[in-house]
Amino acid sequence: MARIVQKFGGTSVADIARIRHVAGVVKRAVDAGDEVAVVVSAMAGQTNQLAAWAREISPLFDAREYDTVVASGEQVTAGLLAIALQDLGVNARSWLAWQLPFRTDEMHSRARIEGIETAAIEARFADGQVAVVPGFQGVGPDHRVTTLGRGGSDTSAVALAAALRADRCDIFTDVDGVYTTDPRIVPRARKLARVSFEEMLEMASQGAKVLQTRSVALAMRHRVRLQVLSSFEDRPGTLVVDEDEIVEQHVVSGVAYSPDEAKITLVSVPDRPGIAALIVGSLADAAINVDMIVQNVSEDGTTTDMTFTVGRSELERAVDVLTGVRDELAFRELRSDANVAKVSVVGLGMRSQHGVAKTMFRALADRGINIQVISTSEIKISVLIDSEYTELAVRALHTAFGLDTEDDGENKGSSET
Amino acid sequence: MARIVQKFGGTSVADIARIRHVAGVVKRAVDAGDEVAVVVSAMAGQTNQLAAWAREISPLFDAREYDTVVASGEQVTAGLLAIALQDLGVNARSWLAWQLPFRTDEMHSRARIEGIETAAIEARFADGQVAVVPGFQGVGPDHRVTTLGRGGSDTSAVALAAALRADRCDIFTDVDGVYTTDPRIVPRARKLARVSFEEMLEMASQGAKVLQTRSVALAMRHRVRLQVLSSFEDRPGTLVVDEDEIVEQHVVSGVAYSPDEAKITLVSVPDRPGIAALIVGSLADAAINVDMIVQNVSEDGTTTDMTFTVGRSELERAVDVLTGVRDELAFRELRSDANVAKVSVVGLGMRSQHGVAKTMFRALADRGINIQVISTSEIKISVLIDSEYTELAVRALHTAFGLDTEDDGENKGSSET
Repeated sequence: MARIVQKFGGTSVADIARIRHVAGVVKRAVDAGDEVAVVVSAMAGQTNQLAAWAREISPLFDAREYDTVVASGEQVTAGLLAIALQDLGVNARSWLAWQLPFRTDEMHSRARIEGIETAAIEARFADGQVAVVPGFQGVGPDHRVTTLGRGGSDTSAVALAAALRADRCDIFTDVDGVYTTDPRIVPRARKLARVSFEEMLEMASQGAKVLQTRSVALAMRHRVRLQVLSSFEDRPGTLVVDEDEIVEQHVVSGVAYSPDEAKITLVSVPDRPGIAALIVGSLADAAINVDMIVQNVSEDGTTTDMTFTVGRSELERAVDVLTGVRDELAFRELRSDANVAKVSVVGLGMRSQHGVAKTMFRALADRGINIQVISTSEIKISVLIDSEYTELAVRALHTAFGLDTEDDGENKGSSET
Repeated sequence: MARIVQKFGGTSVADIARIRHVAGVVKRAVDAGDEVAVVVSAMAGQTNQLAAWAREISPLFDAREYDTVVASGEQVTAGLLAIALQDLGVNARSWLAWQLPFRTDEMHSRARIEGIETAAIEARFADGQVAVVPGFQGVGPDHRVTTLGRGGSDTSAVALAAALRADRCDIFTDVDGVYTTDPRIVPRARKLARVSFEEMLEMASQGAKVLQTRSVALAMRHRVRLQVLSSFEDRPGTLVVDEDEIVEQHVVSGVAYSPDEAKITLVSVPDRPGIAALIVGSLADAAINVDMIVQNVSEDGTTTDMTFTVGRSELERAVDVLTGVRDELAFRELRSDANVAKVSVVGLGMRSQHGVAKTMFRALADRGINIQVISTSEIKISVLIDSEYTELAVRALHTAFGLDTEDDGENKGSSET
C-alpha cells in the first residue's frame, strides 16, 4: 500500500469519455490498496475560454475577479471526476480550495502556496475515500479565490503530495515520460527511466514542456518522488528523483530547446560597474526576465557591447523599457533579433567529465551552425543560435552525445503545455 | 437614494456584449445614488451544459458533486460582471456563497435558503461598492456548495433583498413585465403596471413563466417589492406588490395556461375515507405533485372515479407508482391522457365579484370547448381542457374579461425560463 497523488492535465480530462477513462486509472490504484488524492486541471480549452472572456471585457482586469472566473474550470472537472469515480463504485469526493483550505499568499493570478490542511482528506483515507482536488487554485488571506498561474496544477499536485507525505506524485499527461529530447524532432529520442530533479529542472527551464519548472523545484525541495506518465497507456513513465537514486549518471541526459527567444544587443555601453545591474533591473521592474547575458569588451576599453536574451513575446516591451532609460544606459545603438533559439544539453555527469563543451561546439561547427551566445551552469550548457538551425542542432547534439536509440523510436509523445 | 437588488437572468448575461450592457444598467442605478447588490444567473446555456455533463457520466449522480459542478456557471458570470463594472469605473466585487456566507439547508440540488450574512456587503455600500452575487447557490451545513434548483436565482435575489431590507428587487429578464396573458398567443395582451403578490403567485403556479413561484412566495412573506422589467429596454416594468398597494382591483388580472399537463382517472375506486390521501400520498412519496383533483360518485354509491392531474413529464412514473399500489387502491381501471392543458383566470377582484365562473364557462362553451376538470381558489379558477383548444381558450377568456388592449399589442415579450 502506498499513498499517492495523481495529477491529470487538461488533455487527459478533455471530455466526458476521458474523464471516465481517468476514473478507471484512479480505480486501479485504489483497487491496489493505495491511498489516493487526485489533482485535476480544467477540461482542455476551458481555462483559455474563461481567460479570454475576462480579457475581452477588460485587459486591465481585477486579478481577484479573474481568479474567481478562471478557477471555475477545475471546479467543474473535480466534481465530474468525483461523479465518475462513484459511478465505478469508488468512494470519492471533491474538495474545493476553501473547503480544505488550500492556502496561498495574496498574489492573485500568480499566488504561491502557503499551506494545505490535509487532516480531512487523511481521515477519509481510512474509509478508502479518494480526494479530488481542483488544481491551479487556492484561497488567499483575503478569503478569496487565488490562482497559481499557468501550469499551476502540477505545482498543486506536488504541494499536496508534500503535505500528505505521499510516497509518489504521478503526473499523468499526454506524453508517456521524459525523453532525451523532443521526439517530434528526433524520432530516435529515448524515454528516460529516471532523471534527477536537477536535470529535470534544467530541462524544464530550457524549454522541455513536460513539467512546470516551479513544480520540479518544489518537488526537489520537499523530496517528492515525481513520476511523469501517460494517462492513455498503462505502463511506467519517467521517475524524477533525488540524485542519489540515479544509479548511472549520464554525461548528457537530454537535449532541450527553446524556440521562443529573442536577442537584444546594446552597442557601445560605457564599461563601468553596475551597468549590467541597471539593464537587468530596469527589465525586472517591468517583469521581464533576462536569460543569457554576455558582455564583450570593445577595442578602446571604455565601452562594451551587452547582449542578452528575453522571451520573444516580451521583446517589444523590453525594447520600450530600454529605450526609456537610454539616457542612463548611454548606449549608441540597440539591435534586436527575434529569430534566435536556445539549445541546451543537460546532464549530471558533466560535473565530473570535461570535454562536454568541446563535443557540443564541435558538433555544431561541423554542421556550420554559428554560436551567438553561450551560457553554462554546473549541469547544463546552452547556446543561442539562428532559429532556422534549431532542429538540425538538436539532432546533431542528440547523436553526438550518444542518446539515439537502436530502433527508430516507438511511442513518440507530443508535449502538453 | 434607494437600496436595490437587481437580478439578471441567463439571456441577459448570455455573452460578453450583454454582460457589458448589464454593467451599464447597474451603473445607471449607482449613478442615481442607489446602493446596489446584483444577483446573476449563469450565461444562457451554461447550466444546461454543466448539468448534461454530470448526467452523461452518471444519471445517479451525487447531488453534492452535481452542485459543485453546476454552481460554477454563476461564479463565472459574477466575476465577469464585476470586471465589466470596474471597467466602467464602478466600484464592484463578487461575493461567492462561502464568502458571505449565503447559507442554505443540506438538501443538495433543491436547497432552501436559511440565512444570508450581509454585513460585509452593507459595510461597503458606504464606499459605493456594488456587490455581485452568483444566484442559484449557497453553502450548506456540510460546508459544501448547494444549489436551489432551477430558477433559483430569482429566489436568491428576493432572499438577498429581504436580508438587506432593500427597497426593491428588480428582476431583469427578456420580457418587459407581466402581461395579462402570453403575448405570443394574444397579441393584444396588456402589460400590467402593478400586480399583487397573490395574483402573481397564482399566475406563476398556473404556468406564467416570468417569475419562479418560490421567489414570489418568498417576496410576499418578506414584503419585498418586486419589479419585473427588461434588461434590454430602459423603462418601468411590472411592480409586484402588496395587495393594499393595488389601487384598482381587476376582477380578472390575467389568463394563465399550462400546456404540460396530464390527466389520470382511476375508475371504480372503493368510496371510502382516506382513498384520496392514499393516492396523493403514494405519488408524493415518489416526489410527484398532484394538482387538480376531482371525485365523482358512481351510480351504486360504493365506488367512485378519481381524476387528477400531474405534470406531463411525470405521467409515466405516476402510472408506474399507481400500478404498484393497485392492490391497495383496488381500482378497476387506470385511464391516462397526456393531451390536456390547464387554463386559469386570476384576479383579486374575484373575491368580491360573483359571476366570474359563469362568464368563464360561457366563453368556453361558446367556442365548443369541453371542460374536463375544474379547480378553484379564492382568486383563481382553473379548467382542464383538451390541449388542442389551449390558444383558442386563452384568447376567448382574454376577450371575455375585457383584457384586450385598444391597439394590437406593442412590445410583445417572449418568456425566459
